[in-house]
Amino acid sequence: MARPVAAVRYELITLGDELLLGLTANSHLTFIGAALGRQGARITRNVTITDEADQIAAQFAESWARSDVVITTGGLGPTCDDRTREVVAAVLGQELVFDDSIRAAIEARFARLGRRMTDNNLKQAYRFSRGEVLPNANGTAPGLWAEQDGRVLVMLPGPPNELQPMFSEQVLPRLTRLGLLAEREAYVQVRTAGIGESALEVKLQPVLGPQGEALSVAFCAHQGQVDLRLSSPSGALPMERLQEIARECATLLGEDFLCIGHDSLAKVCADLLRSGEHTLAVAETATGGLLANCFTDVAGASKFFAGGCVCYSNESKMQLLDVPEDILIQHGAVSSENAVAMAAGVAERLGADYGLAITGFAGPCGGTKENPVGTIFLALYTPGGVWSRRLCQSGPRAAVKQRAVNAALDWLRRELLRAKRGGCCGSAAAQQRAGGAMQ
Amino acid sequence: MARPVAAVRYELITLGDELLLGLTANSHLTFIGAALGRQGARITRNVTITDEADQIAAQFAESWARSDVVITTGGLGPTCDDRTREVVAAVLGQELVFDDSIRAAIEARFARLGRRMTDNNLKQAYRFSRGEVLPNANGTAPGLWAEQDGRVLVMLPGPPNELQPMFSEQVLPRLTRLGLLAEREAYVQVRTAGIGESALEVKLQPVLGPQGEALSVAFCAHQGQVDLRLSSPSGALPMERLQEIARECATLLGEDFLCIGHDSLAKVCADLLRSGEHTLAVAETATGGLLANCFTDVAGASKFFAGGCVCYSNESKMQLLDVPEDILIQHGAVSSENAVAMAAGVAERLGADYGLAITGFAGPCGGTKENPVGTIFLALYTPGGVWSRRLCQSGPRAAVKQRAVNAALDWLRRELLRAKRGGCCGSAAAQQRAGGAMQ
Repeated sequence: MARPVAAVRYELITLGDELLLGLTANSHLTFIGAALGRQGARITRNVTITDEADQIAAQFAESWARSDVVITTGGLGPTCDDRTREVVAAVLGQELVFDDSIRAAIEARFARLGRRMTDNNLKQAYRFSRGEVLPNANGTAPGLWAEQDGRVLVMLPGPPNELQPMFSEQVLPRLTRLGLLAEREAYVQVRTAGIGESALEVKLQPVLGPQGEALSVAFCAHQGQVDLRLSSPSGALPMERLQEIARECATLLGEDFLCIGHDSLAKVCADLLRSGEHTLAVAETATGGLLANCFTDVAGASKFFAGGCVCYSNESKMQLLDVPEDILIQHGAVSSENAVAMAAGVAERLGADYGLAITGFAGPCGGTKENPVGTIFLALYTPGGVWSRRLCQSGPRAAVKQRAVNAALDWLRRELLRAKRGGCCGSAAAQQRAGGAMQ
Repeated sequence: MARPVAAVRYELITLGDELLLGLTANSHLTFIGAALGRQGARITRNVTITDEADQIAAQFAESWARSDVVITTGGLGPTCDDRTREVVAAVLGQELVFDDSIRAAIEARFARLGRRMTDNNLKQAYRFSRGEVLPNANGTAPGLWAEQDGRVLVMLPGPPNELQPMFSEQVLPRLTRLGLLAEREAYVQVRTAGIGESALEVKLQPVLGPQGEALSVAFCAHQGQVDLRLSSPSGALPMERLQEIARECATLLGEDFLCIGHDSLAKVCADLLRSGEHTLAVAETATGGLLANCFTDVAGASKFFAGGCVCYSNESKMQLLDVPEDILIQHGAVSSENAVAMAAGVAERLGADYGLAITGFAGPCGGTKENPVGTIFLALYTPGGVWSRRLCQSGPRAAVKQRAVNAALDWLRRELLRAKRGGCCGSAAAQQRAGGAMQ
């Protein structure tokens, strides 16, 4: 198989009524698609069907005929609904053989958990006669692997906590050894923040334009952030050249550049806080804990993250953040004055160098004529002063909340960058540039 | 079409490289699958493919031949990659006609946003000659509708904020009028909390067992909660009987019963707090704002939710919650003593009737020999006293956090139920029953 990895035809068959009924998101597609994508391959088709035997048989036969690698998920469990193993064996013309090593692993698992093993669990101890077993460290159903007709079949259990480690630790290395995946990451990702997709395209034209067909650029926008992935499916540009192009993009982007790689906005802020030995405290209303939560997902957050307050009631703003009652009476909770008082209050109360606050109407209810639903006030307290900014957003509540959090983080990031360069009073200039309403 | 709705063959074709590369979750399957499921129908197959014209043509022809309704998502935009409209028209043997009403809507949208309309946007003003337009209130690309060969075609734009309202407000009513969906909800959902799937099956056997084939029961487990959906695909049991069975389940389940319908655990707690005129404050470390966030997603939360603190540092626990320094020195932050001090501290500081606290090691780092990763301490402060509980969990960080939040909410819910019935000191008994380690 000396074809380029990008031309290998992968198909993913995801089984389960719960997916088709919308009870569970298809996380297998997201996980497996991203993992293959990192190593230069792409799923050409994902089909989700029910657990019915004849549908599985027809779909598997079709996918097998036109693919190089077929991956199935689900349907390997102990109940009578789980017929995938038998159906696929029949299509391949393989026999299922009872494997004592699988039985021993299942029995050991039950013993360890102190549970009684029922006989139907032994159904999971069968493998293809000309195939291998992928041991399951987190459940009873092992995965199955078979190579036949110049093709590869991978069958994985449905629960994500079983499938994901099995795929990363066993399947990816096997596919790589067979030359069906690139040996290392096949693209370079440049992350940006605070710039839209079309503006980004224009800004990067001087670097990306001259590369022509050799360079493939994919844009991916998500709530105020845009990532771009640079790859060279033909192999015309080596990895070193892609990394060079990424660095040229970074230079051109200036402050709009977030990172090369996969770091989150919160992780980039965390690194800037740590390297400057700064601490941060946050206060929020409408975003209800999301701002605090993104820092607590960064490892070692306790080093720089002093804490956060979710202050829905006016009482809590006064009690926890020392917001003066006058401000709440005169300006209301959704105001730049309150945002400033919250940011300063939480920083001072927790002895932090920086304070970041979000207040606003995330919708769908609330809002006033002056400040309709979607109005968000941010405030940033820094060693050099305190500023506020007003955002107007639309869309469903969850999106408004996430974009507000991203806007707040991006503001903090830009301020920390300026502090690192030794600038001061940068915030006012930044706001002017960003065109936000100022208070 | 006098067939039962459950036998109507729906296929969903989702287009987009970003889905296959794992950059975006397939939220269309989840959303459309759930919406059709509520009205008794089911997607029989979902196929995700790239935007390439020949692949779209082949897949569409195949799906069209074997289905009653085909729904496509994506590929209707203004760029040259968006060829779905043309490709599908060719398969159907329909012409595309320029529609002045669509052009007017697109122009009006650009004018309203104060942006200049580029000519490629007019590509979106074409519809099938024998078809209709589904106006798009949230974007430029309208949806398309056609009935042909006794089949229905629905083409929807890709962005979820455009697709979802279009589907709910326009597509569902049209499908219902054609008899392809049930006129009202086709199943009854019983939600439970704090009981596992197999225990639930055993407990409900006296009610569900005798119904035989007439009743279909689907279980869906998610992070400490299990939902069951009762339906009668054959129509043997009318809706009234399904509701009666649901109420019998509720009675049998006692405190393990959460609700009939779709309310979240936080919403059920919110209703109990409101009806008892109680207020709540929360404090958390490892869950980092997730506990607070679930209350702020309930409409009108400011009526009962006093606020929350995310206290990563010891400093913040002392400053915001008055946790005595001695406790942190002697017992550490991950201890029942600290959880109790946090719950009491946040309730007293914010003048709330109830205080709920979570502290622990969510992983992947941290943990001690006594309290390894996955150890979570909960504490509940009530008008009748304050208690703590210890949980041990495993799995990825996000799952540990979500299950800790659900366990805390479920404990609060049970306590509020007892308070409503006029019981007191119920918590101790509940903990004994739940088998949690007690401090």
